[in-house]
Amino acid sequence: MRLPRLTQAQAPLTREVEIVDELGERGLVSIPAERDLTVYVDRRELVTLMTLGAQPELLVLGYLLNQRLIESAADVDSITVDWEVGAAAVKTHTGIDRIEERTAKKVVTTGCGQGSVFGELMAGIDRLQLPGTRMTQAQLYSLVNAIRLQESTYKSAGSVHGCALFTLRDDGIEVQMQCFIEDVGRHNAIDTIAGWIAMQPPSQLAGGRVFYTTGRLTSEMVIKSAQMGVAIVVSRSGMTQMGHEVATRVGLCAIGRATNRRFVCYAGVDRLVLQPELAGARRAATA
Amino acid sequence: MRLPRLTQAQAPLTREVEIVDELGERGLVSIPAERDLTVYVDRRELVTLMTLGAQPELLVLGYLLNQRLIESAADVDSITVDWEVGAAAVKTHTGIDRIEERTAKKVVTTGCGQGSVFGELMAGIDRLQLPGTRMTQAQLYSLVNAIRLQESTYKSAGSVHGCALFTLRDDGIEVQMQCFIEDVGRHNAIDTIAGWIAMQPPSQLAGGRVFYTTGRLTSEMVIKSAQMGVAIVVSRSGMTQMGHEVATRVGLCAIGRATNRRFVCYAGVDRLVLQPELAGARRAATA
Repeated sequence: MRLPRLTQAQAPLTREVEIVDELGERGLVSIPAERDLTVYVDRRELVTLMTLGAQPELLVLGYLLNQRLIESAADVDSITVDWEVGAAAVKTHTGIDRIEERTAKKVVTTGCGQGSVFGELMAGIDRLQLPGTRMTQAQLYSLVNAIRLQESTYKSAGSVHGCALFTLRDDGIEVQMQCFIEDVGRHNAIDTIAGWIAMQPPSQLAGGRVFYTTGRLTSEMVIKSAQMGVAIVVSRSGMTQMGHEVATRVGLCAIGRATNRRFVCYAGVDRLVLQPELAGARRAATA
Repeated sequence: MRLPRLTQAQAPLTREVEIVDELGERGLVSIPAERDLTVYVDRRELVTLMTLGAQPELLVLGYLLNQRLIESAADVDSITVDWEVGAAAVKTHTGIDRIEERTAKKVVTTGCGQGSVFGELMAGIDRLQLPGTRMTQAQLYSLVNAIRLQESTYKSAGSVHGCALFTLRDDGIEVQMQCFIEDVGRHNAIDTIAGWIAMQPPSQLAGGRVFYTTGRLTSEMVIKSAQMGVAIVVSRSGMTQMGHEVATRVGLCAIGRATNRRFVCYAGVDRLVLQPELAGARRAATA
C-alpha cells in the first residue's frame, strides 16, 4: 500500500500569558495554542478545524477517514500543511465522489462538532464487527499508570483533551502505548489517532487495541473507536446515554471514571478479566 | 415586544445503568440523557442538536440567536418540541432570509460544533460594545459559592457541562443567580442561556451580567458571552489561546481556575476589583 506523503508542520503548542491571581499578584501561565486549519481537498474548501496543532497532517487524514470521505490512507497522495496561512492541502489520487452531497448534512454533536455525517455513522454501526479483545484488570491499571506518567500539554497548560491508543501484551499484565495525542477538541484527538493508525503497517498494531480518552464517552467517541477496530475504551470521565446505547449495541467494553485503581465498567464487562484482588491490594497498601 | 410561544417539553435527564466496579461488584449509576433534537424552521430541516433535553425550547431559540439566524425572540412565533419524534418545529413570523446560504459554511470549532458561522462571528466582534461591568473579588467568591451549592445533574450523573448567568448586586458583595443550565454539550448550555435571556423583560437583567461555565474559555464561549452583553466570564477550567485573543480584543474579563478562593484572571483585570485580603482570610481560616 502506498502511503500518503505528509509534511511535518510545526507550531508552538503553548503560549505564555500574563495573569493576575487571587492575591493580586501578577504571573505568567501557559495556555494551549488554538489555531484554525482550513482543509482543502483537491483545491476545494472542505472544513475549518480548530486545533492545538501538534499533528495537523494526521488530524486531517483521520478526519477524512472518520467522516468516511476516504476509504483508506492510500486514497490520498499528499497532505501539505502550512501554518503561515493556516491551510491543509489534500491531494487525492482520484478525487472524492459526491463530496458536496456527503458533506451537506449537519449534526451538532454533544462534545464537538465533527458530526456532519453522524446520521450515516449511526446507520453503519450494525455492520461493524469488533475483534474479540479482552483486557485484564492488571492491564487496565498498567494503562492508567502510563497515562499518569505521560508528559503532556495538559500538565503544562491544561485545557486540552488527551487520547491514547494502547495494544495489549500477551502477558496479560502490561500494555504498550502506541501513540498519545492531545488537542483542544477531543474529537480532533481521536481523529488524529485514526490518522496515525492509517499510517502504520498492520504488524505494528497486532494484539488487542484499547483506546483511552480524558473526555466523556459520548456516542461519537464510541462509534469512532469501533470504526478503528477498538473494542475497549477507557475514560477518566463518565459516559452519556447515547454512548451507552451504542456501546451496548456494538458490544464494546466501556470503562469510565478510571483513575488510580478505581473504575466503573458501563458496558461489555465480558471483555474485562476482573481481578478484584488488585483493587483490594491498593486499598490495603494505602490504608 | 411579542414573545414566542414555547412548549414545555419534558424528558428524564438521567438514566440508571448497571455497572461493575473495580471490586467486581455490580451496582447502578446514573448517566446523563443525551437525545437528538432535529430543528425545523418553517418546515425546513436546519440542524440536529444532541442535548440533555432540560430546556429544549430555550436551546433552539438561543441557537438561532447565537447563529444570528434571527435578530430577536420577536422574530419567532412559536417553538414546539415533541420528544416522541425528537423534533423542534420553529415557526417564524416572516421566514429567515437566505437561510440556505447562511448555514452552508462549516467550521468545526474546538469545544463543540455550533461553529457554522464562526467566521462571521469573528468578523463581527469588533463591532461589539461591552457594558462597563465591574465585579468585586467578594462577588466572584459569592458566585463560586452559589455554583458549589447548586443542585445539578452533574452531581447526580456527571458528564454534563453547566453554565449560569449572574447579575451583580449594588452592594458590591453579593450576586444573583438568574439561571443555571446544564447540557451534554457546553455550547448547548450557553445557547440555552441566550434563549432564556431573550425571553426576559429587560428589567430582570438590570445590573452587570456575569457568565459562569464549567467548561474551558474558548473563543466561541467568549464571543457568545460578548454577544449576550456579558463583559465578565468565569470558568472552573482554563482558557485557550484564541479565547484569550478574543477576550483581549473585545475587552472582556476572563477568569479561570475558579474554585474555592483561588482563581486566575487571564484578561481584562481592570474589570475586577481585587480584594486580596479575602483570599488571605481563607488561607488563615483553613490553616
